[in-house]
Amino acid sequence: MARYDFASDNTAPAAPEAMEALVAANAGFTSGYGTDPVTARAADLVRALVDADAEVRFVASGTAANAISVAALARPFEAMLAHEHAHICTDETGAPGLFGHGVGLIGLPGASGRIEPAALEAALAQPDVSYRQSPAALSLTNATEYGTVYSHDALAALTAPVKAKGYGVHLDGARLANAAAGGFDLKRIKDLGVDLLVVGGTKAGMPPTEALVIFDRALARRFDARLKQAGQLPSKGRFYAAPFIGMLEDGAFVRHAAHANRMARRLADLMPFKVLHPVEANGVFVDMDDRRLAALHASGWFAYRFLDGSVRFMCSWATTPDAVDELGETLRRLA
Amino acid sequence: MARYDFASDNTAPAAPEAMEALVAANAGFTSGYGTDPVTARAADLVRALVDADAEVRFVASGTAANAISVAALARPFEAMLAHEHAHICTDETGAPGLFGHGVGLIGLPGASGRIEPAALEAALAQPDVSYRQSPAALSLTNATEYGTVYSHDALAALTAPVKAKGYGVHLDGARLANAAAGGFDLKRIKDLGVDLLVVGGTKAGMPPTEALVIFDRALARRFDARLKQAGQLPSKGRFYAAPFIGMLEDGAFVRHAAHANRMARRLADLMPFKVLHPVEANGVFVDMDDRRLAALHASGWFAYRFLDGSVRFMCSWATTPDAVDELGETLRRLA
Amino acid sequence: MARYDFASDNTAPAAPEAMEALVAANAGFTSGYGTDPVTARAADLVRALVDADAEVRFVASGTAANAISVAALARPFEAMLAHEHAHICTDETGAPGLFGHGVGLIGLPGASGRIEPAALEAALAQPDVSYRQSPAALSLTNATEYGTVYSHDALAALTAPVKAKGYGVHLDGARLANAAAGGFDLKRIKDLGVDLLVVGGTKAGMPPTEALVIFDRALARRFDARLKQAGQLPSKGRFYAAPFIGMLEDGAFVRHAAHANRMARRLADLMPFKVLHPVEANGVFVDMDDRRLAALHASGWFAYRFLDGSVRFMCSWATTPDAVDELGETLRRLA
Amino acid sequence: MARYDFASDNTAPAAPEAMEALVAANAGFTSGYGTDPVTARAADLVRALVDADAEVRFVASGTAANAISVAALARPFEAMLAHEHAHICTDETGAPGLFGHGVGLIGLPGASGRIEPAALEAALAQPDVSYRQSPAALSLTNATEYGTVYSHDALAALTAPVKAKGYGVHLDGARLANAAAGGFDLKRIKDLGVDLLVVGGTKAGMPPTEALVIFDRALARRFDARLKQAGQLPSKGRFYAAPFIGMLEDGAFVRHAAHANRMARRLADLMPFKVLHPVEANGVFVDMDDRRLAALHASGWFAYRFLDGSVRFMCSWATTPDAVDELGETLRRLA
Repeated sequence: MARYDFASDNTAPAAPEAMEALVAANAGFTSGYGTDPVTARAADLVRALVDADAEVRFVASGTAANAISVAALARPFEAMLAHEHAHICTDETGAPGLFGHGVGLIGLPGASGRIEPAALEAALAQPDVSYRQSPAALSLTNATEYGTVYSHDALAALTAPVKAKGYGVHLDGARLANAAAGGFDLKRIKDLGVDLLVVGGTKAGMPPTEALVIFDRALARRFDARLKQAGQLPSKGRFYAAPFIGMLEDGAFVRHAAHANRMARRLADLMPFKVLHPVEANGVFVDMDDRRLAALHASGWFAYRFLDGSVRFMCSWATTPDAVDELGETLRRLA
Repeated sequence: MARYDFASDNTAPAAPEAMEALVAANAGFTSGYGTDPVTARAADLVRALVDADAEVRFVASGTAANAISVAALARPFEAMLAHEHAHICTDETGAPGLFGHGVGLIGLPGASGRIEPAALEAALAQPDVSYRQSPAALSLTNATEYGTVYSHDALAALTAPVKAKGYGVHLDGARLANAAAGGFDLKRIKDLGVDLLVVGGTKAGMPPTEALVIFDRALARRFDARLKQAGQLPSKGRFYAAPFIGMLEDGAFVRHAAHANRMARRLADLMPFKVLHPVEANGVFVDMDDRRLAALHASGWFAYRFLDGSVRFMCSWATTPDAVDELGETLRRLA
Repeated sequence: MARYDFASDNTAPAAPEAMEALVAANAGFTSGYGTDPVTARAADLVRALVDADAEVRFVASGTAANAISVAALARPFEAMLAHEHAHICTDETGAPGLFGHGVGLIGLPGASGRIEPAALEAALAQPDVSYRQSPAALSLTNATEYGTVYSHDALAALTAPVKAKGYGVHLDGARLANAAAGGFDLKRIKDLGVDLLVVGGTKAGMPPTEALVIFDRALARRFDARLKQAGQLPSKGRFYAAPFIGMLEDGAFVRHAAHANRMARRLADLMPFKVLHPVEANGVFVDMDDRRLAALHASGWFAYRFLDGSVRFMCSWATTPDAVDELGETLRRLA
Repeated sequence: MARYDFASDNTAPAAPEAMEALVAANAGFTSGYGTDPVTARAADLVRALVDADAEVRFVASGTAANAISVAALARPFEAMLAHEHAHICTDETGAPGLFGHGVGLIGLPGASGRIEPAALEAALAQPDVSYRQSPAALSLTNATEYGTVYSHDALAALTAPVKAKGYGVHLDGARLANAAAGGFDLKRIKDLGVDLLVVGGTKAGMPPTEALVIFDRALARRFDARLKQAGQLPSKGRFYAAPFIGMLEDGAFVRHAAHANRMARRLADLMPFKVLHPVEANGVFVDMDDRRLAALHASGWFAYRFLDGSVRFMCSWATTPDAVDELGETLRRLA
C-alpha cells in the first residue's frame, strides 16, 4: 500500500480543529468576497498572531500569494532577491514571472536554505544598470526549504541592508507555524521590515487556505482588485477564513507544528542515513543514493530527491510516532 | 438583520451533499496535485456528466478558470469574442488580460445575455488587420448573466461559424447546473465544438471549486504546468474534487439547481416590479428605481443593480419558499 | 500610379532638416544607449521646446512609447481613461495590455476626438470596486485623432479633476507639432499635470523617432531599464536623437506642421464632400459613401475610412498645394 | 579624448552603403507598415542571403526581435534553452519575460559561448513536471557572445535533438555577418530547423534595424499584429528596410564583417594580455585585472568586463588598423 505520510506536509488530511471550524462556518447566508463576519474574525486572529494592525486577506494558493507579493514589490524590469532554492525560484513554474510580468529572480546561495548575508550584500552592491533587472525586494522563507529556522536576529541581519536601500521584503511563511514552534517569534515579524507575509494554512494542517498579511498599508490600496484579477479573491470567503479560526483560537496552529517538528526530530534520531541539514522544523534531509531511494519507493514509501541532492522526509500534524518508527525500520533495512 | 439570501448565488452555504463528501475525503494521507484517488473519482463523474472522454481539472476560482481558458485559446495579440455583459468582460477586473497577457475582449450585443448571431457574424467577418486584435475564440456563458438559458441549437448556431473559421470555444458554466435544470443537455456540449468548459461548483452549492473540462486534448499538453504557474494546481486536490463527488454521485448537482430555478420562478410570479428578462434559470431581473432599491436595502435585503440597469435577485439551492414569500412581501410594500 | 500623399502623415519621406542632422550625426565612434553627446543635445532642445527640466528619452515607436507610459501610470488591475477613439484604444493592437500586463482601458465619448468633460467626471465618480479596473490615469491626445486641437484651458479642465484624485496624466503627442501650429502652447504643458508626454517625431516628418518626456521625476527611476526590457533603449541612440536636433534647432518642427495644417485647410476649402470635424490640424474628415470611396481608390488615391464612419485625408510637411488641388479635382469628379 | 572604438560594435557610425540606401529610399510618398516597395526589395535580398522562401520583417530592436521570438516559440509556463551567457539571458533586462509573459530561461554551460551538447541533452532529458517550466525551444547565438563561431555541423548537433522533441529553434544573429565572414554558411541555416532568425543590422554597420526571418510559416500567421502590439511594426518601414538593400546588394554586409574580423585578429596578434577565447569573429576577450582596466579607461579607451571575468574589445566595419595599433600600443604600456 502506498504511503504518502512523509512525501510532503500537504499529503496529510486537515486537522480536526480546522475542519470543525469550516463546518461551523457553513451556516446561513452571508456576504461575499471577504466582507463576512467569519473573515473578519479570522483576520483579527491573524493580527493577534503577529501582534500587528495589518491588513489581512485569505487566499486559496500559496504559489499565488507569493507571486502576487512579488508583483506588488517589484516591477517587471526589476528583480526579487531570494535563496536560489526558495520555493518561488524552483517549485512554482515561474509563477512570479506570470503574475509579475517577467519580473526577475536573483538566486542567492546559502547553506541549508538560509541566505548567506555576504551574498545578499554583494547583490545589493551591484550597480544599477539598464540591461539588468536590479533588485527591488527580498523574499525570505521561514522555516526554510531545508527545514532550518531563521532566528529573528538572523532575519534582521538580512532585512536591515535591504530596508536601508528602500527595498521591500516578502516573507514566505508556508511553514511559519513550524518556524514558530522552532522558536521564531511571530510577534516581532513587524520589526523586521516585512511588507508582505504569507501565513501558510495548507501545510499547517488546514484545508487549502493561506493568509496574506499586508504590513505596509500603502501596498493595500486596491489590493482586493489585485486579488480579484489574479483569481484570488474568493466569493465564499468564509471557507478560507474559517480554518484559521479553528487553528488560531486555541493555539492548534503552533501546537500541531510543534508535534510535526518533534516527529522530524524523532525521525532524525533514528535515521540510518546521514542527515544533511539541521533539523529545526518538520523536515529531515538525508544522503541516500538512487538505488536505495528506488528500494524505498518499492517498499511503498514515497519521498522526493531535492535540488541539493538530498532526499526529503516531511512530518505534519498527522504524523504518528508509529509511522516514524515504521519508516525508520524500513530505512534501516535499506541502509 | 442583514439578509443576503438573494444578493448572489454564492452567499448560500455549501449543500450537505458537498460538505459530507468533503469531510469524508479528509481521511488519511494521499498524494498531491490532483494525483489522488478522490480527484480521479470526481473527474470520472464530471466526464459522465458531460458524457465525454475529456481531461478534467479542479481549480479554486471561476475567474481564474475562465481567464486561463482565454489564455489557452487566444494569444496576446488576438481577442476573445464574448457577450458585452459576460462575466469575463465586466466582473473579473480584467483577469483575462492578466492571465492572457493583454489579450483583447470583443464585446457583442444581444438581448438578455444571449449573443445576437448577426453581431457575431459581423465580428467574424471583420478583416484581419495588424492594428487590431482579431478574434481567435468565442466565450459563451450558460446560463447567461441575465438568467436566460441557451438551448443546444441556439449555441450550435453560434459555435458553427466560429469553428468554421478554425477558432476556439470556451463555455463559462458558472451556472451550468441551472442551465441543465433549465433544459440544456450537458451530454451534447461535446457536439458544440467547445474546447474548454468551466463547470461551476461554487454557485451550484459547493465549497469553492470549479471543474475545468478540456475537450480538446491538444490543449491539455502541459496543462498542469499552466495551472501551477497560475496558482490553480492545488496541492491538496481532494478538497476541490470531493464536493463534486457528493454533488454528482446522486444527482444533487442538477436537483439543487432545479430547486433554485423554481424559487426564481416563484419570485417572478409574485414580483410586483416589472421582470425584464425571461426567468429560465435562478435569477430574476426587475425594473426598480434607486429610491425603492435604497428602501429595500434599508429593510435589510441586499440586491444589486446590474449593468443593464436592472436589479437582480438570485436564488440558490438554499433559498426557501418562505424567504421568497418574505422578500415578495417586502417588495410589494415598496412597489 | 498609386498616390499615398493623403493616406496618412507617415507616408511622407523625412524632411531635409531631419535627414541632414541624421547624416551629420553619423560620424565617428560614440557611446551607446543614449549616453552620447547627440542625444544630450537633442534632449536639451526637447526640454527647451516644452520649457521644462524634464527627463527625455528617444525611442523608436510611438505605440511602444504610449504603451510604456500606460504601464508606468496604471497597474494591471487598474485602468487608463482615454477617448474611446484614441489611438491607444483602437489602433495599437492592444499594446497597452501587453506592456501593461492586462491593464484596462476605459473609453470615454466626446465629439471630434475631444473627451467630453462630463463623461470624464462620471468615470472618476465611479466607486472603487474589486471586480472592476478602476482608473489610475488619463490619456490625452493632442492634436486629436479627428484633427481637432485642444486648447490649454480645455486640457486643464480635463486634467484638474484627474490630478485632484492623485491620478496620472499621459499626453500622446504623435501630432504635437500640428497642435502647436494650431495654437496649443507647448511651454505650458508642464502646468497641466502631465506626467508623461510623447512628442511625435515620425508624423512630424522625421525618420522613425519619438521623444518621451518624463515630467514626473519619480517615474524616471530605472526608466532606462524599463525601456531596455521593452526593446526601446536603442544602442545607437544618436539615430533617434539627431532628427530632433535638425527639426528643433531652427523651428522646422512647428514650421513644417504649420504647412501641413495649411494644406488641410486648403483641402477643406475645396472639399466637395461634407467636412465632419473642425479642421484645426492636418487632417480632413469627410462624409463619403462606399461607392465613392471605391471610386477614389480606383483613381489611385488612398484614403481610409475611420471608426466614426468618416473618410480621412491627412496632410504632412511634404504635401504640396498642387497635390491638394489635384486631389480636390478628383474628388469633385466623384462627388 | 574618449575613445569608444572598441567598446562595442554599436559605437561605430553606419556604413556608407547603408546610409546611401537610406537617403535614397527617402523620396516620395509610400505606403506604410512594411507594405512599400523598399521593404519588398529588402525582404527579397534577405531571402536570397539565406536562400530560403521565408517571411521577412524589419524591426527596430534586436532585444525586441529576440524577445518576440521567444514568445512565439515558448508559452509562459514553458522555458527557452540558451547559453547561460547568451544576450537574452544576461543583457536584455528580462525582455523575454516581459514579451513572453514570464516565460522561463534555462541557462546551459559551454566554453567560449558555445553550448555544451551534453548539457543540452541533459536538459532535454529532464522529465516534464508541473512545478517547473519545461523547455519548448532552443535559442542559439552565432557568432557567440564570446566571439566564437559555430560551424554548421556544430549547430546541427545542437538542433537535431531539439527538433526531435518537436521543439522550436531561435537563432540570434546579432553578429550573423561576422559568423558568415568566419565561415558559417548562411544558405544552410534552413537545414538546421531554425524557426526564427534575427539577422543583425545594427552591429553589422547599419542604422538601427534588424531583419526577422520566419522560416516556419505557421508562426507567421498574424505576425504583423504580434509586431504591432509589441511596438515593432514601424509605420515608415522603408527606414528599416533600406539599409539592408545597401548592405546586401553588393555584398557589403559580409565584406564589412570580414574586415571587422580581420581587425580582431590583428588586435589579438599584438595583444600583450592573455586571449581567453578563440578569435573567430570580431571580438577579443582578454585576462586583465581591475587596476590595468582602470588605467586603460584613464587613458581614454573604453572596454567592458564581461560575465566570465574577461575584458572585451570589439571591432567593427569602421575599425582602422591604425586604431588597432594605437590601442595595442597603449595596452603594451599597461601590461
